[in-house]
Amino acid sequence: MIISSEKLPEKAKQIIQVKDENVTEEDLKEAIALLTWPRKISEYIDKMPKLQVIQTFSAGVDDVPFSKIPPNVKIFSNAGAYALPVAEHAFGLILSLAKGINKRKRIESYQLNGKIILILGGGGIGSEIAKIARNGFNMKIIGISRSFRNPELFDERYALDKLDELIGKADVIVDTLPLNKETLGILNYQRLSKIKDKAILVNVGRGETIVEKDIIKILKERPSLRFGTDVFWRVNGVENFNSELWNIENFAGTLHIAGGYASTEVLESAMIKACENLSKFLKEGKAENEVKISDYM
Amino acid sequence: MIISSEKLPEKAKQIIQVKDENVTEEDLKEAIALLTWPRKISEYIDKMPKLQVIQTFSAGVDDVPFSKIPPNVKIFSNAGAYALPVAEHAFGLILSLAKGINKRKRIESYQLNGKIILILGGGGIGSEIAKIARNGFNMKIIGISRSFRNPELFDERYALDKLDELIGKADVIVDTLPLNKETLGILNYQRLSKIKDKAILVNVGRGETIVEKDIIKILKERPSLRFGTDVFWRVNGVENFNSELWNIENFAGTLHIAGGYASTEVLESAMIKACENLSKFLKEGKAENEVKISDYM
Repeated sequence: MIISSEKLPEKAKQIIQVKDENVTEEDLKEAIALLTWPRKISEYIDKMPKLQVIQTFSAGVDDVPFSKIPPNVKIFSNAGAYALPVAEHAFGLILSLAKGINKRKRIESYQLNGKIILILGGGGIGSEIAKIARNGFNMKIIGISRSFRNPELFDERYALDKLDELIGKADVIVDTLPLNKETLGILNYQRLSKIKDKAILVNVGRGETIVEKDIIKILKERPSLRFGTDVFWRVNGVENFNSELWNIENFAGTLHIAGGYASTEVLESAMIKACENLSKFLKEGKAENEVKISDYM
Repeated sequence: MIISSEKLPEKAKQIIQVKDENVTEEDLKEAIALLTWPRKISEYIDKMPKLQVIQTFSAGVDDVPFSKIPPNVKIFSNAGAYALPVAEHAFGLILSLAKGINKRKRIESYQLNGKIILILGGGGIGSEIAKIARNGFNMKIIGISRSFRNPELFDERYALDKLDELIGKADVIVDTLPLNKETLGILNYQRLSKIKDKAILVNVGRGETIVEKDIIKILKERPSLRFGTDVFWRVNGVENFNSELWNIENFAGTLHIAGGYASTEVLESAMIKACENLSKFLKEGKAENEVKISDYM
């Protein structure tokens, strides 16, 4: 038996048989698989002695209570399920800045067509951004990443150690980086200083990959640079959307909604992807996005 | 001899020999062609007895002083020269609205991928919008126009009399219509009422194709509709950017800058296009965008 903590769309239930309502204690005792959000795992885990696999609806698994999960239980994330909305959102920030939307005064219009976009991160989000940039706006695509999910989408590909050389070449820079030891504060004052005039920088990765005081300093010093972000810096573990950035003219922001906030369409598509992946695991014994607990513990 | 009222970029001067500085009264007497902005024609026209052709840098020719121009002088506009920046700008408004950029609160994210876009107007701007919509965002393209410059870019094409049937089918509607008897106030309350929930309407055509009080009414009645515009309504012949729209939550705007405001790049590219067209006329005796004076007098 497979249990879902959330009601699934019909299309998802055509993929695998799931009990997604009226779940009893008996059901939980017998179930071998759980579809859920990371924050709900704690409610279920102790009641499911036969559990073999957890598939999350979320792309991120930071909130999984790893210490409570028996070592034989496999965990799969839903990485990539929100890549398309995030990529559209990145272009929302880019174009809003380029075209001075809602500025209530006339500011110089920046053109995208034919320009160079530097994408930091070559995963699902970076790939979707590359597609829109090339097909929609005829841009040249440079990627910087440890690995590329779709290398063919990038005109040039480099590792992170080439960032200092490449950052000054781009007209648009999109940060989709995950947060880790290598990326923490990677966009500091010294690197931000190399960005060329009239460039646009957008962050849909993690706030802390950019040094907040450094981006504020550089935006004040160089009004032709424009910066947009969907992600902010954590204070005591909680993302803090109050930032001095909101008072800066050459800034645009949203409150961490790029993944398709309140969109039934995005949620249903993510649930379907989760069911497809779990179904693959149950049939073939392997699937995408297996979480390495050692990355988190 | 060819005279330009403006200094041209080098690339333009490689196309045709133009005198674009230190122009003397003698030069004007001999010149057969004039490259200029409509508003500057009056300064030149009386001094150029041998003038055969005027090529404007602007796409629009409303401001040409037609009554002062001898009937043997041909006039060519630069229609299409700003189509690409306007199309990018339209997507700036669309995505800014779809993604709630700068709202400082979380609002529902609307997705573009796979949706239906209805483009009113099949000229240069409509064509460029169709390209971005299809190639960048995988949208289905419906066009409404008297004629289509690039019919192959549209999945379905209709005349203006089908607007009532089609307006309710679209997720995104972009108005690129010119202003004439047929289009004045075409988007009135009755038609706007047919737009479906959670749709986005953007105007990069002319303000007066939409009835201002009607769009304000409908935006207040239906908060899930989102409206953006670059063009406003004229008061005594002057576009008036003060509108009650700015106080409405589900609105985004810019002050008629879609054509690439203050962009050297756009201006130079437009000047090059003007020179190419004039060169074509001088070599072949015909060129694109010949202005029919009867349309304006």
